[in-house]
Amino acid sequence: MKITKDLYQGSLALLTDFYQLTMAYAYWKSGKAEQEAVFNLFFRKHPFQGGFTLAAGLDYVVDYCKNFKFGSEDIDYLAAMKNQEGELLFDPEFLKYLSNMKFSCDIDAVEEGTVVFPNAPMIRVKGPLIQCQLLETPLLNIFNFQTLIATKAARINLAAKGDPVLEFGLRRAQGIDGALAASRASYIGGCSSTSNVMAGKLFGIPVSGTHAHSWIMSFETEMEAFEAYANAFPDRCIFLVDTYDTITGVKNAIKVGKALRKQGKEMLGIRIDSGDLAYYSNKAREMLDEAGFPDAKIVASNDLDEHIITSLKGQEASINVWGVGTKLVTAFDQPALGAVYKLSAIRIENGTYVPKIKISQQSLKINVPGIHNVKRYYSKGKAVADMIYLEDQEINPKGLVIIDPIDSTRRKRIMPYFYQEEELLQPIFRKGKQVYKSPGLERIRQRAKEQLESFDKTHKRMVNPHLYPVGLEENLHHLRTELVLKAQQLDPKDEK
Amino acid sequence: MKITKDLYQGSLALLTDFYQLTMAYAYWKSGKAEQEAVFNLFFRKHPFQGGFTLAAGLDYVVDYCKNFKFGSEDIDYLAAMKNQEGELLFDPEFLKYLSNMKFSCDIDAVEEGTVVFPNAPMIRVKGPLIQCQLLETPLLNIFNFQTLIATKAARINLAAKGDPVLEFGLRRAQGIDGALAASRASYIGGCSSTSNVMAGKLFGIPVSGTHAHSWIMSFETEMEAFEAYANAFPDRCIFLVDTYDTITGVKNAIKVGKALRKQGKEMLGIRIDSGDLAYYSNKAREMLDEAGFPDAKIVASNDLDEHIITSLKGQEASINVWGVGTKLVTAFDQPALGAVYKLSAIRIENGTYVPKIKISQQSLKINVPGIHNVKRYYSKGKAVADMIYLEDQEINPKGLVIIDPIDSTRRKRIMPYFYQEEELLQPIFRKGKQVYKSPGLERIRQRAKEQLESFDKTHKRMVNPHLYPVGLEENLHHLRTELVLKAQQLDPKDEK
Repeated sequence: MKITKDLYQGSLALLTDFYQLTMAYAYWKSGKAEQEAVFNLFFRKHPFQGGFTLAAGLDYVVDYCKNFKFGSEDIDYLAAMKNQEGELLFDPEFLKYLSNMKFSCDIDAVEEGTVVFPNAPMIRVKGPLIQCQLLETPLLNIFNFQTLIATKAARINLAAKGDPVLEFGLRRAQGIDGALAASRASYIGGCSSTSNVMAGKLFGIPVSGTHAHSWIMSFETEMEAFEAYANAFPDRCIFLVDTYDTITGVKNAIKVGKALRKQGKEMLGIRIDSGDLAYYSNKAREMLDEAGFPDAKIVASNDLDEHIITSLKGQEASINVWGVGTKLVTAFDQPALGAVYKLSAIRIENGTYVPKIKISQQSLKINVPGIHNVKRYYSKGKAVADMIYLEDQEINPKGLVIIDPIDSTRRKRIMPYFYQEEELLQPIFRKGKQVYKSPGLERIRQRAKEQLESFDKTHKRMVNPHLYPVGLEENLHHLRTELVLKAQQLDPKDEK
Repeated sequence: MKITKDLYQGSLALLTDFYQLTMAYAYWKSGKAEQEAVFNLFFRKHPFQGGFTLAAGLDYVVDYCKNFKFGSEDIDYLAAMKNQEGELLFDPEFLKYLSNMKFSCDIDAVEEGTVVFPNAPMIRVKGPLIQCQLLETPLLNIFNFQTLIATKAARINLAAKGDPVLEFGLRRAQGIDGALAASRASYIGGCSSTSNVMAGKLFGIPVSGTHAHSWIMSFETEMEAFEAYANAFPDRCIFLVDTYDTITGVKNAIKVGKALRKQGKEMLGIRIDSGDLAYYSNKAREMLDEAGFPDAKIVASNDLDEHIITSLKGQEASINVWGVGTKLVTAFDQPALGAVYKLSAIRIENGTYVPKIKISQQSLKINVPGIHNVKRYYSKGKAVADMIYLEDQEINPKGLVIIDPIDSTRRKRIMPYFYQEEELLQPIFRKGKQVYKSPGLERIRQRAKEQLESFDKTHKRMVNPHLYPVGLEENLHHLRTELVLKAQQLDPKDEK
């Protein structure tokens, strides 16, 4: 078995569902492998009962697609598969086809750090049916998770109202990459640093951390432990005060802080990791202020999330820095986003694209057909509405109507003439060639900040947020309605 | 930036919290780096409000420790770190020490597939303080997640009462390794197969899958889609029937099933992925039976977990195979286990080990001090109790008492003489040398099955399970009580 460092050295082409490969084979056998199709990746509901979602994961997607290739080990694995009668499952000609396959799709996507909404595509893939299909699972894996965590991080940072939020979830994250990708997404969402040193090295994220209870326990007394730490890092002392008794811990920290001052060094602060954080942070603040340490920071940790931070802020806890782990990196209250990837158009023999719909008993689950893009309208720098529209649709600058995809009685009139507009989907690949250059993690983090600021604060409320208007342009709405009705009538014909 | 396939090529030594490195440095500076210590990895509460936990992740831990080494890139990264005054953070001598560090710990651990309980160590690490500390975060990352998912999988398989459970969570898993490690842990917990082809290739897990809604939608009609699939895979047809209308879908599947039969092939079944699964599975069963397909299986999927499966079984839904994704691989209702890693003893200058305790305002959070092991007693093949005991403690074969670590009034008399016993912690490494050979995934999965069977079914109840007795051997209980009292008296001395 090869795990950890050997795990990812090969190709990642098999990081997909097996049904993508059986479909790939069946497309190939049916002569449909190269038929052009369009798929959209989108979600149906904001996570955490929130009013916004923050997109992340594009750099991973770019990397995945750029390196997309079936390696010889992948092909050997598939070539050995047998059906129940002991015959080879895949025709060797098909495997040859796979091993020669070169990624050749067009991909358009929202940039990382973009605020996004239900039903609007975050990624649009256009290309040979077989490639679109094979990409479904890895693209969902990457985007679902990173978008989820970036959103959670944004919520937690909003709750912290500008205080630094330190991410230290590695020990409880879901696997190695579950930690690394979460550190990256958390940084995009506004966190100041990570505890994960490998994420620091790989992504250039600032790392932070001082000491744990085991440090204190490895000495005879707490004082000895604080003194030894101060000796090693005189100018980065944040003393963990709750190993034995929090109040005594604060007193001991103050003593060592005073000793440091004699050497011309300043203690940075203390950390409280248990007990009632409102009570102990206020007690500690009083003690630190009285002792002449008004600038010493109080770092708090212990199962924090946006709701507990909001509550502690409401109680006027004296906390300056928030350490957040498990609840952030696993998105504890909703650990999956549930984005999907749906066929929306397919090119037929005469060269035209036919829009496609999947109907469902739940109207929420009916997709948006056709090839579309998304425009965001701004008024004086504030986002006012998003419009999903057919790409070849002309937009009347004087006025148009957008219609909610779930509740068609919810409509909004848009007058593009008065607004600034932003095209949300950007070209990433053209015929397999990368045409997009990542702006880098710092710029992505900055974009997230600017994007969040462009939305009214009522959309960012933690609970029961004000709904931001996102609708289908009128022609797209009509196309969709028509196709739904047509699809429902299709069934009797099939029965014959 | 290097991601996906380039991500894991280097060393994984930096896959740890930064405070482990600052502590490592401070230990080194204090002359304590090589002082011997013992740490235990354990959890405090079963996940999912359940009555058991299934350990997994040891093979990853072995691999991690075996390959533990700071690479030159790691050292370069650390060497470039500066403090606030622009001076180097780490002494170059320390970095030299790190780059020469060789893993040299003793590790004892429960085998994968062992049923485990709160407060009893799953892993015990004994070795130089600095190494024990650096290993804390990666060991927790690996064990927390894989144990969580193996437990969830075991619960879901118990609910399915022997029906095959297919894992297909890749698209919603938390990152790449969040998917791969989850597939492995799900297989240990009893799942029959995974959809994740890469997990199939890496771990030898059977893979399964047929086709998606997009396959159906890429054809003009559902019938054409079924026929084309049957043409490609005549002997592995499971038709997805709910793209447009489930009842019509079943009728179409039956038609193609009849055509297959004329070629001497048998349709395997159908899959339902939406709507009321109780209603549609029973309708479909009737239709299939009437049409002469009593052996065709009905596969159900759509946000299933152990509770929904139990409910569908209670409603006598005609479901033969369960496809489970998101709720399994993210452990949706509790996405983190919360295992911890605590110092329990440290060797002092005279060569003896001093037991260590961390006290807390919550008695649940007080650890078990000393160097201990765990014995499981069996009566007629059924587990009756687990005992945590001091390693150098002699066990009276005639009788002893175990005491619940949280509630000391809960006690149980054990008469080892009448029982079979099993030592749960097995030697894995001795002075850094691997002494344990993994039995391989199939044998681990079998062990999980046997272990689960050795517990009374009331301990495995989904909700409100019967508590299995786990206690401290009397001497260990006394040691712990004494240390707690002593630690509480320590504080006033520190204040002076």
